[in-house]
Amino acid sequence: MEKFKITFFPDNKTIEVEKGKTILSAAISAGIHINSSCGGDGVCGRCKIILKKGQLVSLPTGRITAEEKKKGYHLSCLAVPQSDLEVEIPKESRLDSETIAKEDGYLLRLKGVYSESEDVAQGESILGEEIFIHSPLATKLYLDLPKPNLEDKISDLERIYRAVRSYQAIPVLQTGIANIRRLGELLRSSDWKVTVMLGKRNGTTEIVLIEPGDTSSENYGFAFDIGTTTICGQLIDVNSKKILGTKAAYNKQASFGSDVISRIIFAQEADGLEKLHHAVIDEMNIMIQELARENNIDLNDVTCCLCAGNTTMIHLLLRVDPTYIRREPYVPTANFVPVIRAAEAGIRMNPRGLLGCVPGISSYVGGDLTAGALACGMDKTDKLSMLIDIGTNGEIVLGNKDWLISCAASAGPCFEGSGVSCGVRASKGAIQRIKINPKTFEVEYATILDAAAKGICGSGYIDAIAELRRTGIIDRSGKINPGLRHPRLRQGEYGKEFVIAFKEKVGTSSDIIINEVDIENLKRAKGAIYAACSTLVRHMQLDFDELEQIFIAGGFGTYLDMPNAIFIGLLPDLAREKFVFVGNSSLVGARQILLSHEAIIDAENIARKITYFELSVEPQYMDEYVAALFFPHTDLNKFPSVQ
Amino acid sequence: MEKFKITFFPDNKTIEVEKGKTILSAAISAGIHINSSCGGDGVCGRCKIILKKGQLVSLPTGRITAEEKKKGYHLSCLAVPQSDLEVEIPKESRLDSETIAKEDGYLLRLKGVYSESEDVAQGESILGEEIFIHSPLATKLYLDLPKPNLEDKISDLERIYRAVRSYQAIPVLQTGIANIRRLGELLRSSDWKVTVMLGKRNGTTEIVLIEPGDTSSENYGFAFDIGTTTICGQLIDVNSKKILGTKAAYNKQASFGSDVISRIIFAQEADGLEKLHHAVIDEMNIMIQELARENNIDLNDVTCCLCAGNTTMIHLLLRVDPTYIRREPYVPTANFVPVIRAAEAGIRMNPRGLLGCVPGISSYVGGDLTAGALACGMDKTDKLSMLIDIGTNGEIVLGNKDWLISCAASAGPCFEGSGVSCGVRASKGAIQRIKINPKTFEVEYATILDAAAKGICGSGYIDAIAELRRTGIIDRSGKINPGLRHPRLRQGEYGKEFVIAFKEKVGTSSDIIINEVDIENLKRAKGAIYAACSTLVRHMQLDFDELEQIFIAGGFGTYLDMPNAIFIGLLPDLAREKFVFVGNSSLVGARQILLSHEAIIDAENIARKITYFELSVEPQYMDEYVAALFFPHTDLNKFPSVQ
Repeated sequence: MEKFKITFFPDNKTIEVEKGKTILSAAISAGIHINSSCGGDGVCGRCKIILKKGQLVSLPTGRITAEEKKKGYHLSCLAVPQSDLEVEIPKESRLDSETIAKEDGYLLRLKGVYSESEDVAQGESILGEEIFIHSPLATKLYLDLPKPNLEDKISDLERIYRAVRSYQAIPVLQTGIANIRRLGELLRSSDWKVTVMLGKRNGTTEIVLIEPGDTSSENYGFAFDIGTTTICGQLIDVNSKKILGTKAAYNKQASFGSDVISRIIFAQEADGLEKLHHAVIDEMNIMIQELARENNIDLNDVTCCLCAGNTTMIHLLLRVDPTYIRREPYVPTANFVPVIRAAEAGIRMNPRGLLGCVPGISSYVGGDLTAGALACGMDKTDKLSMLIDIGTNGEIVLGNKDWLISCAASAGPCFEGSGVSCGVRASKGAIQRIKINPKTFEVEYATILDAAAKGICGSGYIDAIAELRRTGIIDRSGKINPGLRHPRLRQGEYGKEFVIAFKEKVGTSSDIIINEVDIENLKRAKGAIYAACSTLVRHMQLDFDELEQIFIAGGFGTYLDMPNAIFIGLLPDLAREKFVFVGNSSLVGARQILLSHEAIIDAENIARKITYFELSVEPQYMDEYVAALFFPHTDLNKFPSVQ
Repeated sequence: MEKFKITFFPDNKTIEVEKGKTILSAAISAGIHINSSCGGDGVCGRCKIILKKGQLVSLPTGRITAEEKKKGYHLSCLAVPQSDLEVEIPKESRLDSETIAKEDGYLLRLKGVYSESEDVAQGESILGEEIFIHSPLATKLYLDLPKPNLEDKISDLERIYRAVRSYQAIPVLQTGIANIRRLGELLRSSDWKVTVMLGKRNGTTEIVLIEPGDTSSENYGFAFDIGTTTICGQLIDVNSKKILGTKAAYNKQASFGSDVISRIIFAQEADGLEKLHHAVIDEMNIMIQELARENNIDLNDVTCCLCAGNTTMIHLLLRVDPTYIRREPYVPTANFVPVIRAAEAGIRMNPRGLLGCVPGISSYVGGDLTAGALACGMDKTDKLSMLIDIGTNGEIVLGNKDWLISCAASAGPCFEGSGVSCGVRASKGAIQRIKINPKTFEVEYATILDAAAKGICGSGYIDAIAELRRTGIIDRSGKINPGLRHPRLRQGEYGKEFVIAFKEKVGTSSDIIINEVDIENLKRAKGAIYAACSTLVRHMQLDFDELEQIFIAGGFGTYLDMPNAIFIGLLPDLAREKFVFVGNSSLVGARQILLSHEAIIDAENIARKITYFELSVEPQYMDEYVAALFFPHTDLNKFPSVQ
């Protein structure tokens, strides 16, 4: 296919564009930012460029004044190059990036632990088997249309519909005026060979986009797990269902509050909602851009995005006021969010691409748990099962194919490596396994991808506590034995601390340590989760022993030492074979929904089916929590294997 | 309901607004223009206002820069007054009206005959009986929602869905993110009493808008017939199905070309498409605003609009390039246009209101004929029927419930009172009946609404020709008898002419006359229509005598003298009782479709069913046309009653 060169000023970047594509589309492909808010429909008038050299054809628009027209202004979404071009992106079309840059100033990245580009090994484990038919949120279909003649004179749009329907029976097929406005010229300049992108939107099918030529082999999507502390994004080849890459980063919203409640409060401040919204969107856009670049993928070929997150995260993602989530009777604005254009939420991919969100259950149990329950097949199993998703908000679902009940407990971010002195995300260089010699107190550890240690992630902390307790360095309440003397034991800024790795050995700027404040935080976190599980089980008049399988989810990287998690009292003391570590089950579920319409329907059914049990109004929960503030528990009878 | 006052500067206009409504919505109600292109979704950022005094709450937006924010800028679509306000509409938010004002300069109104505000008596005749169930394009439903409590905690959006579904079984229900963003605050500030506007969009139902309080009794729509020469608009109370008013005006596109072909050519010039688009939209917006004002209707309560027009008119209305309509093989971009937001086509009513177009048949037979066939019930009758829609493009459909065939012939605009020396639209003061005393040549005439005569409309011309012929003033070829001498017969600027009314008697600036050029034009017009009918009948191997009913449609006001129409050879010479004058059947059909989903489905079936017969490739047509260029015809055997 013929190509033209476009040079963008003032950046002086030159890119190639296929004949028939718009300038905006070419700019998006090349990662050059031009404002746009209407999905390239020619409506918002924000994507103005100035033609300096060359020929283009442009659809008419009322968004360019006569004066601007004289100066060579065009809307880049309506302008199709006819030769090599030189264009200028004027200041007003760059405004967004300035705004974002400015707001970025507020967002202090979490000190020392944030990295944009590192690889992350995400525990994919046993989940993600192909149980759903392949029917993605957005599909591409190449059409080599018969040219019209005097015997076959149906209109251009009906010709497209007829061809689409010859492949698939789609009774309700929709499209927008923007596609129709381009259609006549597009079909003829592409010699009636086009690719249509079909999107599934809330029970109907939409012709989202029509592109010249055959681009059907290039169709990519993103699955996101948007956690209170960690955002995880995954690039997927929608055609082959292959995962092309995964990234995780801390949610920059953390600088406005570490838990959902403090963020809801912040959202009520002037610009609060906008700042929170940008914090999450910016991070997602960075991930999308980097993963696409690393895989040589044109952002225009990223057609769909599916997000799982707790209810507050989804509200903030969509810039919906979360105020009423924390006001009695705790009602969110939406649990079932319709599929919208990703651009409407500020996500940068194909400007007409689609964004779906996994349906949520209640104000405090979100679509992340729905996705997790879907991924674990809890709605299909006869076995009495429990899913424990260990995040900042610990979410638990209990049941089987007949019934499901959920609850949530605020655990804080320490199992995600945040809010603890040397915590890091489960990423390259994070210490995830720890052994302490009971005699010498020497420490053996292993890091993710065997890189130089940079801090401790959740699974490392679980091992650390277990080993400190096992060696008697800490007592059952988590206090460091004051009688012990050892070079690794010392008084730190925040009380007594134990050195896991000396800086000289690992090359960090300071020693990697765990102190009594960290241990106290971890104790509260594990106590909250254990108490939530036990209260829920008791509420259903069950006993832990009756559970047949327990799925453990969370951002623990590739590894979680189940015996140690039981040893410290995070998990109930049951037979090891009942536990299944499923990694980020929310991300797995989001990917399943991205790739299958069947999974969407299942997820909706799960979200409707799961009842919500409110722990905060249950007096028993506080008793259970206080009882769990020991390692492993005040009542050792509950932990016979530890006893 | 509590109200606030808003004063807009620089106009210094003060309006009242109900609590909970946005400033944009209030401005639209009051006819104050603020730019907006995204339907009030907060996306386009074009509706900026500056707060000068008072309190408002506003949803956050990235469309206002930090600098603007300091100056008090807000998006009027996101800003809800909390007190009386003073606001300024800055220059950039007024740009559209300037653009339009400028373009208005190009559009020379048709000299002397254009009036914006006169009443029009449209022939409503026998059509429009209630054969369809009442299920309008947009309905309003008042919901007094149960407030959420700890036992009933479904989300705000699901609460709305549940309530809507308690009235109607709607499996696929959609809504947009803009409604969700406003929902939490809206429901609580309106004490859970809201009105939802439900729109039928291409086989699905959309919650188009959610308003505070009960506005369900105020739901209005417009039906439009967009002709090449005349635009006719009708305001309808969607709840009661009552017609509240009708207006007609010349299509200002005429200054760019009198027929569809010349306009398609003009559309290819720079800005041509844009100018043609604005010409029609501006006229429609004037009608909407005037009819709403005359009926004390808030434009926000105008929720839907349904347009019938020929294929080129619909393309231009939607700003879709019509180029390919006139290139072989004559394929339009779309015959079946999806329902879109009226704002996307530039129509000013409720910014989220819907626009539908009657499906068309081919490049030269449009949705106006579909609407006419629907209105005449041609798809339901056993009788062999013909519909002759006499417009600039004469369109004919022949058949019954088993089959339908159509053709089109370019007749020119003279039956609409355009392109003839003293022609006027069928409106107040138009001469519509003429009698000439065969002895004295004195003229008796009647005008529409008995007002002072201002010119001659189509039915007046038909009478004039018949009487001139009957009295022997003109011969069968249309030439004025050179031997006659009379004060009413004289040499004019364009050949011989006959005076219908002297200026002294009627108070016009010049005499109302008909000249040989007019007669020639009328002869060609009637010849084209007659030849089209006869060619179509012969193509189907039928005879005129076999027709059981003939519907005559067109902008003839309240009156058409059928015997005279036969006498001049416009209509075939058949028994009078077979003819039914149906007035503007296209407008009637558009109104039926606006008010009933059943009618939409029927119209789609009609459009699919009607085959198109291309006259221009049929050699017989030219023979028929030439033979018809006499009054009534070269072959008098075809007109036994005239003979």
